[in-house]
Amino acid sequence: MIALSDPISAFPVPDLASLPEDVRARILAVQEKSGFIPNIFLALAWRPEEFRAFMAYHDALMGKREGLTAAEREMIVVAISIGNQCQYCVVAHGAILRVRAKDPAISEKIAANWRKARLPARSRAILDYATKVATASHLVSSEDRAALAAAGLTQDEVWDVGAIAAFFSMSNRLANAIDLTPNPEFQAIGRG
Amino acid sequence: MIALSDPISAFPVPDLASLPEDVRARILAVQEKSGFIPNIFLALAWRPEEFRAFMAYHDALMGKREGLTAAEREMIVVAISIGNQCQYCVVAHGAILRVRAKDPAISEKIAANWRKARLPARSRAILDYATKVATASHLVSSEDRAALAAAGLTQDEVWDVGAIAAFFSMSNRLANAIDLTPNPEFQAIGRG
Amino acid sequence: MIALSDPISAFPVPDLASLPEDVRARILAVQEKSGFIPNIFLALAWRPEEFRAFMAYHDALMGKREGLTAAEREMIVVAISIGNQCQYCVVAHGAILRVRAKDPAISEKIAANWRKARLPARSRAILDYATKVATASHLVSSEDRAALAAAGLTQDEVWDVGAIAAFFSMSNRLANAIDLTPNPEFQAIGRG
Amino acid sequence: MIALSDPISAFPVPDLASLPEDVRARILAVQEKSGFIPNIFLALAWRPEEFRAFMAYHDALMGKREGLTAAEREMIVVAISIGNQCQYCVVAHGAILRVRAKDPAISEKIAANWRKARLPARSRAILDYATKVATASHLVSSEDRAALAAAGLTQDEVWDVGAIAAFFSMSNRLANAIDLTPNPEFQAIGRG
Amino acid sequence: MIALSDPISAFPVPDLASLPEDVRARILAVQEKSGFIPNIFLALAWRPEEFRAFMAYHDALMGKREGLTAAEREMIVVAISIGNQCQYCVVAHGAILRVRAKDPAISEKIAANWRKARLPARSRAILDYATKVATASHLVSSEDRAALAAAGLTQDEVWDVGAIAAFFSMSNRLANAIDLTPNPEFQAIGRG
Amino acid sequence: MIALSDPISAFPVPDLASLPEDVRARILAVQEKSGFIPNIFLALAWRPEEFRAFMAYHDALMGKREGLTAAEREMIVVAISIGNQCQYCVVAHGAILRVRAKDPAISEKIAANWRKARLPARSRAILDYATKVATASHLVSSEDRAALAAAGLTQDEVWDVGAIAAFFSMSNRLANAIDLTPNPEFQAIGRG
Repeated sequence: MIALSDPISAFPVPDLASLPEDVRARILAVQEKSGFIPNIFLALAWRPEEFRAFMAYHDALMGKREGLTAAEREMIVVAISIGNQCQYCVVAHGAILRVRAKDPAISEKIAANWRKARLPARSRAILDYATKVATASHLVSSEDRAALAAAGLTQDEVWDVGAIAAFFSMSNRLANAIDLTPNPEFQAIGRG
Repeated sequence: MIALSDPISAFPVPDLASLPEDVRARILAVQEKSGFIPNIFLALAWRPEEFRAFMAYHDALMGKREGLTAAEREMIVVAISIGNQCQYCVVAHGAILRVRAKDPAISEKIAANWRKARLPARSRAILDYATKVATASHLVSSEDRAALAAAGLTQDEVWDVGAIAAFFSMSNRLANAIDLTPNPEFQAIGRG
Repeated sequence: MIALSDPISAFPVPDLASLPEDVRARILAVQEKSGFIPNIFLALAWRPEEFRAFMAYHDALMGKREGLTAAEREMIVVAISIGNQCQYCVVAHGAILRVRAKDPAISEKIAANWRKARLPARSRAILDYATKVATASHLVSSEDRAALAAAGLTQDEVWDVGAIAAFFSMSNRLANAIDLTPNPEFQAIGRG
Repeated sequence: MIALSDPISAFPVPDLASLPEDVRARILAVQEKSGFIPNIFLALAWRPEEFRAFMAYHDALMGKREGLTAAEREMIVVAISIGNQCQYCVVAHGAILRVRAKDPAISEKIAANWRKARLPARSRAILDYATKVATASHLVSSEDRAALAAAGLTQDEVWDVGAIAAFFSMSNRLANAIDLTPNPEFQAIGRG
Repeated sequence: MIALSDPISAFPVPDLASLPEDVRARILAVQEKSGFIPNIFLALAWRPEEFRAFMAYHDALMGKREGLTAAEREMIVVAISIGNQCQYCVVAHGAILRVRAKDPAISEKIAANWRKARLPARSRAILDYATKVATASHLVSSEDRAALAAAGLTQDEVWDVGAIAAFFSMSNRLANAIDLTPNPEFQAIGRG
Repeated sequence: MIALSDPISAFPVPDLASLPEDVRARILAVQEKSGFIPNIFLALAWRPEEFRAFMAYHDALMGKREGLTAAEREMIVVAISIGNQCQYCVVAHGAILRVRAKDPAISEKIAANWRKARLPARSRAILDYATKVATASHLVSSEDRAALAAAGLTQDEVWDVGAIAAFFSMSNRLANAIDLTPNPEFQAIGRG
């Protein structure tokens, strides 16, 4: 309705054909899986080295299947991203969260106010700590880690919550700094 | 998936049968129109006088059909409500905004970051002023009103933007203070 | 000494003669009771429907005589209004508070820092909760309501504290957005 | 009405008789002039060296009669002190401001929101700079000093505005840290 | 003098011998070059995949030799890291900055207040933008990028400033979340 | 490397020869002791009365040898000064702290994040309270003073912590308002 034209990013977006083989392969793989290329792939491809490091880091934290569930990981991303007002990340990871949690209402509720989302105690402890890492990491102390342990998290899971909150504190700022636009395809995903 | 049971509000919710006639009539009318009773009606009905004043105020600001469009009014509500982390208002008015704007992606983009939503200049001027009224009204000055005039708003429209931002600064706080839960029906509305 | 001329509001102020009968009657009643017309009445009269809803809401919350005392209600208003730097509300409700509390020093002390005003525990609990509703309502939880219950408040009183804090979060913003000027008469009221 | 007993300070308050001669003389002089001993004198007298330095600094900045007027100096104090929620300073210097400005309404209007007090341009420039020194001094730059020069202030006056804002940033914190109580006599002063 | 014992991190630190070959090689290389192993290497080695991605990302942004100078890159890191109160990053990158800038006083001045460090216009523009990306990335717009262009930065350099600010927004939070301790060796480096 | 020319202050700096005898004597004494004249002495000498009061206050709080140790007093100054981004105070008192604590690494660690500096409980309690006085003195209560008593501080020491935090809340703002430049000599002091 009211949107002006939407370039992908404020920086140059390279041709697929001009990209290094491994970068192009990664992009074609995500396109095959999702049916479209999420704009973060195209925007970051302008910098192949950073693309590789970003994706490797992302996969290490978000693709892991022990410990935190996939839905828990995505919940952290949505909660952090709305705090940083990263439109791309809220829209894209909101879609993934709906799919992972098999709940079409979850992403909007987490984004609006996770504290009012009547989540189980474990989820609340996770988001409480993730929020602190994202907004006041200088105050994090052993008491915060102990609170997560008391909520049943292992030491590995505590690291993961902090690392995911930190990683998206980076990606939120990167996406905001380059005016990254969310693909229109995200909005219909996981609406049930 | 992960939600615990959802009471409507932290305060008593009266029986429809026990309500004053005019309050019940208003509730039945919205139920007939929407297919369900938005929880704000049930929660406020515990206080019939406040119910009447709230609805009259709401209708005066949101039901008006001159000046600001319905979509512009709802855009203000979503932008203010995410700032106050009012889950009920983000979910409910997000649904109405999608319908009014005939755009299934609009509410999530406004909520995530209206400044990145590539809106036309008039919309940006409206949301800029509404945000200032909601977050730093003590700094509002004639320069802010002049900026809206420069973006083409009439004096009547400038009042409306400020009044809507102020009214939802109240409803956001009220909904948060009573732990008002959004109806599950909202999430599917206007998804296109 | 140093004030420039003081228009009532940045928006048009209607003639009493041009107003709908009920609005004019309400204004004449307050004038008869107070000896002058508080500017909020004149400024809001530009919008009769909003005037009626605002006054009905105000009366439902501030005119009630069960539960919170009149002085407690006005204390909330002064504490919230200074936080929002609403000059009109601080001056006007400061006057009413001095009268209701029969204490010429109370409004200035509450405005400067209610936490240092050596208030009884019940008042402190009320202002603590009201401040939270006004400044961080997204963090309000059942623990906050339990703290009020522990300080002796009924469920009805807890609602009222939250609703008054929310209502003046609106009026503070409205008054600031329209540059509402306090009547000079307020300053001498209740000085003992 | 609702106040509990009011000790002067959270720290020991010495007997006048036990004080060094010069400190006692200064206290008796203010008592003779004002009709009562402002509590800051008694509270600080616990530390005679600090008492002497504080008073000497205060007099150098507030007693000076060239440049800024006495009313301008006190306006700065009230504006800074409400920002720091220093009850003692708002009440005590509010009284002095009313006297200096010969305006019974001025202190409450400055405290509530000096930006809405319709002050002349020179006063606004002074309070704008003083507020920046008090709340974000790390951002002060030559542009801020140039704005004061443009409003007609001399270099000496610019120093004074900054120094007064800085000095009361100290006294506000000191008074808050020792729970200094304002004398009841202040409230009636300068009410016209 | 007053420090308690200093474990490297709140999480397990692996034996060099137990590490994957490439991770160990990278660590031995930095030890050979610096004379000690910076603690970030040991702490991250607990997670070899994250170690590799972090180092690859770091090297892509900080090891690049076109565009921004090495001193400019490190200045950004120090300015962002003090804002996030990341002790490890301030101490470690303060040392590198002193070396790169050949100026023993530079890191402390940047950390204390880069705006008061009397830097040339290009450096100020860089740190102004980096600070905005780190603290309010949701407000970044094309005007900010234009300001950098006006200060002489190329599009590539603008990306780099934003990407470095974003990357250290992550590492600051990660280091704070794991209580990473700076090696004592850093403090003497580059003191001239 | 990159610094432009460094005037001492944005205000006039008087000739030593033109100063009142006592002011000049005090300056010559510090020059004899330190080997150079710290710029604060020259900048404040423009205002001899303020110079005398400032130095007397400073000496009463920082020169005292009972109660808090010299290192504890300087730790407070560094922690408060970095919070206010006062470059002069961080650099100058960082040097003194290194000397007093006989620890070349201490000032940078306190400045970066005293909470991560693994200090003993007494130091943490001191800095916690000093930070509260500097940043939120309106919230200080008897509970805060009780926490210091529980950490072993006497009533005299509690006053001193608050008074030092308040005094440097003033000097930080004053130094920032006049663009006071740190002497280059400070950086090498106490590096061990």
